Amino acid sequence: MAQKPSIPKGTRDFGQEEMAARNYIFDTIRSVYRTYGYVQIETPAMENLSTLLGKYGDEGDKLLFRILNSGDTFSGVDFESYRGGDGNVNSNKLSMKVCEKGLRYDLTVPFARYVVQHQNEIAFPFRRFQIQPVWRADRPQKGRYREFYQCDADVIGSKSQLNELELVQIVDRVFTKFGINVAIKINNRKVLTGLAEISGFPDKVTDITVAIDKLDKIGLDAVKEEMLGRGLSAQAIDVIEPVLNLQGTTAEKIETMRGLMQGNSASGIVSGTGLLGLDELTELFGYIDAAGISQKVEMDLSLARGLNYYTGAIFEVKALDYAIGSICGGGRYDNLTGIFGLPGMSGVGISFGADRIYDVLKGLDKFPGNIAGSATLLFANMDASVIGYLVPVVKRLREAGVSCELYPDQTKLKKQFDYADKKGIPFISINGGDEAASRSLNLKNLATGEQKSFSCDDIEGILAFLAI
Amino acid sequence: MAQKPSIPKGTRDFGQEEMAARNYIFDTIRSVYRTYGYVQIETPAMENLSTLLGKYGDEGDKLLFRILNSGDTFSGVDFESYRGGDGNVNSNKLSMKVCEKGLRYDLTVPFARYVVQHQNEIAFPFRRFQIQPVWRADRPQKGRYREFYQCDADVIGSKSQLNELELVQIVDRVFTKFGINVAIKINNRKVLTGLAEISGFPDKVTDITVAIDKLDKIGLDAVKEEMLGRGLSAQAIDVIEPVLNLQGTTAEKIETMRGLMQGNSASGIVSGTGLLGLDELTELFGYIDAAGISQKVEMDLSLARGLNYYTGAIFEVKALDYAIGSICGGGRYDNLTGIFGLPGMSGVGISFGADRIYDVLKGLDKFPGNIAGSATLLFANMDASVIGYLVPVVKRLREAGVSCELYPDQTKLKKQFDYADKKGIPFISINGGDEAASRSLNLKNLATGEQKSFSCDDIEGILAFLAI
Repeated sequence: MAQKPSIPKGTRDFGQEEMAARNYIFDTIRSVYRTYGYVQIETPAMENLSTLLGKYGDEGDKLLFRILNSGDTFSGVDFESYRGGDGNVNSNKLSMKVCEKGLRYDLTVPFARYVVQHQNEIAFPFRRFQIQPVWRADRPQKGRYREFYQCDADVIGSKSQLNELELVQIVDRVFTKFGINVAIKINNRKVLTGLAEISGFPDKVTDITVAIDKLDKIGLDAVKEEMLGRGLSAQAIDVIEPVLNLQGTTAEKIETMRGLMQGNSASGIVSGTGLLGLDELTELFGYIDAAGISQKVEMDLSLARGLNYYTGAIFEVKALDYAIGSICGGGRYDNLTGIFGLPGMSGVGISFGADRIYDVLKGLDKFPGNIAGSATLLFANMDASVIGYLVPVVKRLREAGVSCELYPDQTKLKKQFDYADKKGIPFISINGGDEAASRSLNLKNLATGEQKSFSCDDIEGILAFLAI
Repeated sequence: MAQKPSIPKGTRDFGQEEMAARNYIFDTIRSVYRTYGYVQIETPAMENLSTLLGKYGDEGDKLLFRILNSGDTFSGVDFESYRGGDGNVNSNKLSMKVCEKGLRYDLTVPFARYVVQHQNEIAFPFRRFQIQPVWRADRPQKGRYREFYQCDADVIGSKSQLNELELVQIVDRVFTKFGINVAIKINNRKVLTGLAEISGFPDKVTDITVAIDKLDKIGLDAVKEEMLGRGLSAQAIDVIEPVLNLQGTTAEKIETMRGLMQGNSASGIVSGTGLLGLDELTELFGYIDAAGISQKVEMDLSLARGLNYYTGAIFEVKALDYAIGSICGGGRYDNLTGIFGLPGMSGVGISFGADRIYDVLKGLDKFPGNIAGSATLLFANMDASVIGYLVPVVKRLREAGVSCELYPDQTKLKKQFDYADKKGIPFISINGGDEAASRSLNLKNLATGEQKSFSCDDIEGILAFLAI
């Protein structure tokens, strides 16, 4: 009784080539994280729902994959008690009864949970990176998956802008290694808070930032309309508007903003928070000048990002030569671990979007040529009497680091060539009784057709022919 | 409202040191798989329950973690229709209504599903490896987890015993790299089938193998009792018993068995299947002799393994110097993909038990000393005026491959030393205005106390001092 096999929508299988490409992305990011002294951790795929719920807003709660408690979960349940006034069972309430665990939605909340749980073992400031899949019950669509990897680095327990600098350096190094030209955009959430203060609506930071965050997508007029819709006055919007159109160097922009925050505003309020944010930006851009960043770095006061927990620096990275959304982002947060009982820990982090980076590398043809992931050399299998000669020879080459296959079955040579071709194996070795008698090996480069014979002891010559 | 954070029972967080140790294990296995031409794939954590159910027996079905369908899952459910005769709701039936997906239980069934789903893209024989976590709702206990990694390699689409040889070579190479002495035990399921045939109970292969599988644990007498309990006759057991106590070389044991299978049995049956199994063993051990295996390899006719889908070779690996169960195992199966609509594909695979290997390496103190995973060098932060000098210097060292940290905050030196100590950072660099003026660096080896000054341009000298 055969089933037609498939996988859940929004999930993916990764075959040889995609894995090789993805490993290249993860290995590159990992190696840069490591040179900056970030250490790797892993947390479980399943977290207690109490850890996850309420951290991502109501919408996020709905997108959590919940895991049914094991055992005879439903037998003692009084379903009637879960019916609401409309007579329908409240799915959310009942699922809280029958599900205690959920799949992690991101790596940030598990990281906060980890820091609090292990605070006595950790040396602060704690720099950790984490590369693991996350799961979201989002409606699947092009480029949006229900299972995808995040590649996060965070440092927690230090307020120094040197941490922001190093994250900018990491972003610079990673994309330079990838050969992707990017713009690294930087803002500071405190400046946005200051903006709300001088607009006369200090409690509308979220409304203002959510609106500003859409500037790129919907344009200035629509943003102004959105702000009006969110309860800001026309006068307030007049205060905010020039900020979205600042010109000049970073230092000049900061100076203009400083004037605004110091009281040249319609509200007459002096924003201490805004000035603090401008001081942080000045310090960070000073470090950036000292470090020398290869990629384009720019202050962008219209950058807000959606997440509400950022309290200081905000980062976003866009590819310059490929149209796609943000491929990396992050920022500073002051209160991430407070919800788990450890207040007052400031941290800053970034996250690389592996799927989009994959698309950019593919679209710009920037993947290195040598990452195919298959063997380098196929030994053809033609003659049973030669196997006893080949087995130890193949073994020695493998121990010298050559990825080899010995075709396991004695079939037509054509079939074995097709196999090498389909798998992208670049070299083949075909040997018979003569080679066994003279302890030699025939090697053939399948791309160029070049053929050469080597003594089976001439490992160095063989490696050179294989370009290893 | 602070929550006390915790993780679901049976799951684990992995910190810096455990991650470094685990990465060492995975990287070693992966590198050996690669030299044998195995290519990596990954499959989703979630599979359709229809893919998973019925593949692991009734007990396995109960151990699947099921994922609640998202949305308003319960609102339209007629709970009454799920009540059985006893008035209780049938949890299993209801969970089939509200859960379509489950977490993967192993890597073998997803692999079989993958092969069938992607059969037109795959070059057969297909050699794949896969290193991913699996989830089982087992009762957690010491050494048994609800989330753990499996490290599988399988080749499918070839019946040649050369595949078995290569898996034995992989096992040999991996454990030799680990510095763990092991015994690689080999048997063949066909021989066990033959045994059932000559005992006169050809339909009791499973009963016989399940009983034989317990030989190590419960001893010969209890195994005989178990066989009686499973419906075998005393005469049948008399036929089977001498096989469990075979003596001599592998060739001698095979010859003795061959005599038995050819008709010297109580039942008088000639077992063609058993003879075929003995032929396969003879071929495999011939290859093993040609290859030269460093570790101990032995035929063990009492080896059965629990899983019923094996049809040929069976492997099991035990550590010789550390008391723990099997640390690696596998075998050949002829029908893995049949259930998904692709019959007649023979394959053979192995799986390394990463958690047990971790315990063995730890117990025998065989982890390499240099895998701590933290930075090599900490730059102390003492003087704001020096930061502008240090930032580009640290950057150059990182680009030369040195994992460095620049302590982000200006605090007491004692605190920065403690940080290096707690994180296991072996070198520290303390610099002030003099060093900035002369463009030099002080380096100190924290273990030996050795101190030396270098020009900041002398990357080679610095690398040598850091023993990189």
